[in-house]
Amino acid sequence: MSKRPTIAITCGEPAGIGPEISIRAAWELRADVKSVLIGDAAFLSMIAASINPDIHLSALSLQAVRNNGLPAFPRDQIAVIDCPLAAHVVPGKLDAHNGRYVLQTLDIAIDGALQGWFDAIVTAPLQKSTINDAGVPFTGHTEYLADKTGTKQVVMMLATNATPQPLRVALATTHLALKDIASAITFESLSDIIDILHADLQKKFGIAQPRILVTGLNPHAGEGGYLGREEIDVITPALQAAQAKGYDVSGPYPADTLFQQKLLANADCVLAMYHDQGLPVLKYASFGLGVNITLGLPIIRTSVDHGTALDLAAAGLGQADHGSMLEAIRVAAQMAAASRASTE
Amino acid sequence: MSKRPTIAITCGEPAGIGPEISIRAAWELRADVKSVLIGDAAFLSMIAASINPDIHLSALSLQAVRNNGLPAFPRDQIAVIDCPLAAHVVPGKLDAHNGRYVLQTLDIAIDGALQGWFDAIVTAPLQKSTINDAGVPFTGHTEYLADKTGTKQVVMMLATNATPQPLRVALATTHLALKDIASAITFESLSDIIDILHADLQKKFGIAQPRILVTGLNPHAGEGGYLGREEIDVITPALQAAQAKGYDVSGPYPADTLFQQKLLANADCVLAMYHDQGLPVLKYASFGLGVNITLGLPIIRTSVDHGTALDLAAAGLGQADHGSMLEAIRVAAQMAAASRASTE
Ligand SMILES: [Zn+2]
Ligand SMILES: [Zn+2]
Repeated sequence: MSKRPTIAITCGEPAGIGPEISIRAAWELRADVKSVLIGDAAFLSMIAASINPDIHLSALSLQAVRNNGLPAFPRDQIAVIDCPLAAHVVPGKLDAHNGRYVLQTLDIAIDGALQGWFDAIVTAPLQKSTINDAGVPFTGHTEYLADKTGTKQVVMMLATNATPQPLRVALATTHLALKDIASAITFESLSDIIDILHADLQKKFGIAQPRILVTGLNPHAGEGGYLGREEIDVITPALQAAQAKGYDVSGPYPADTLFQQKLLANADCVLAMYHDQGLPVLKYASFGLGVNITLGLPIIRTSVDHGTALDLAAAGLGQADHGSMLEAIRVAAQMAAASRASTE
Repeated sequence: MSKRPTIAITCGEPAGIGPEISIRAAWELRADVKSVLIGDAAFLSMIAASINPDIHLSALSLQAVRNNGLPAFPRDQIAVIDCPLAAHVVPGKLDAHNGRYVLQTLDIAIDGALQGWFDAIVTAPLQKSTINDAGVPFTGHTEYLADKTGTKQVVMMLATNATPQPLRVALATTHLALKDIASAITFESLSDIIDILHADLQKKFGIAQPRILVTGLNPHAGEGGYLGREEIDVITPALQAAQAKGYDVSGPYPADTLFQQKLLANADCVLAMYHDQGLPVLKYASFGLGVNITLGLPIIRTSVDHGTALDLAAAGLGQADHGSMLEAIRVAAQMAAASRASTE
């Protein structure tokens, strides 16, 4: 990579493993990525010093960045945009006083990405309950990002560098009770999702003609209507409409036999109809190194595919695995490079 | 294995790849398994001669077996219980005249297993439509086996010798439209399925205290009721009832994170709530070498996890992969050995 992309990393829930894995991953990737941590600079510096005295964090004030933009800084330093904590942090112990702090780090990252300071943002895990307990209605990172950027529809994708080939799985529905899934998938919703998926695979992944394999909703993709009619009534018409736009989209395929190397080898992405149809394979194949990607936003955003792991944080530094965070930053960097190439 | 188990192999749809893969697999495993093919002896002998002139099939009449039982025969011979075709077979071309023939091979295998001639039966794929076109209502191998043996409830399990460890996935529901799944899972149905799974893992797999991990129905196993209440209202009570019987059953676990090595390493079987929640991972992990096992029957039955592959059959011998058939016979042999040990 000739130019290091600049990537904002929100360190997430301060009592979880987010701060540690963010620092470790940013440091490990410093040769390739100009990471900008967003969080309390004093708190993060203390953690960094405990991890490895060689790690140099350099604190920036938000106001200074607003006035002058991001400064240049040497490759052996990690920038931190300072965002002060409201209360002292006890690892493993949630404190609603810091709920708004977590949102502020997100706001800085989103605003900065929209301003062009950052090529992408990567988010460490947060704890929804802490934010809700702070009196702020909050349903999740993804919804917050959509709302803040005025995006009507986003698409959740998980990716992994599995062998023998990378695997990407996007979802037509996400966090819905099973009984509500069938009625949530309409010609319009599915068409919107395919549009976003196709566009972002081009724009953010640099794939000229993305090949998308789509699952059915029912077992055996409905077996010709015998096991459900949604394939005939909804999915196939949506795929035909997408094909009419020139998209390389095919299906609906039975989900149980779609995830075969011979089919995946000729595809860039699988679009699954729901969470538990697509994600078990992805997570089985990724061995904890999955990356969560939000498509449809005007910015590039990736995140880890695990939670705050309060128990590991409580046990002290050195317990957490920062592998998923490394992957999340690497994928964000790849997407930033592909985006830059596609707009040049 | 000191004693070779006797395993009946129904060769399935004659125009598909069933006859070829049955012969190849039976021959390859002849040192360990006394295979008894069920099919048209002249037809199978012709195929065997084309595959390899060294293969010796020895034809038995059903009447002779009924009168005298299975004879001893040398290890370099494969027995065939003769069941005549009704019409000449053109590979790749379905013919309803042979629909009843396929059922007759099944009847011989089932009766023989119930009589004690066979330790297990393995079924090659058949074509439902051929049987229906012959005027016989038929919904599938599994339903037919349940009906013929007077079994009220069977459980479908798929297994594979994946690395780093074998994977077994049983299903609480099988071929149902997605929208009908939630209401099909009741305390009673789930309890029955857990009883069968526990009993057959003991009896047919020789696992003294089977460890069963159970998925939730909804994403994140319902997230405390926020994404569906079936975990709280149905699944957890059924698991508690099973635990009260002394079963080592746990869950409900989120399906997307359950299939991790660290969890699977301490489990004998996963019980998934439905087809597309459990089978994509199994088939991804098995690379076409999955084995389908029907639990709850008074006999041992396994089968391949693929179809008749009429296109491959039409292309001539040597196109089909008999890997899944080898695995199906091996698993049946292991189950036969475990069953014998458990009743001795
Ligand atoms: Zn199926
Ligand atoms: Zn989820």
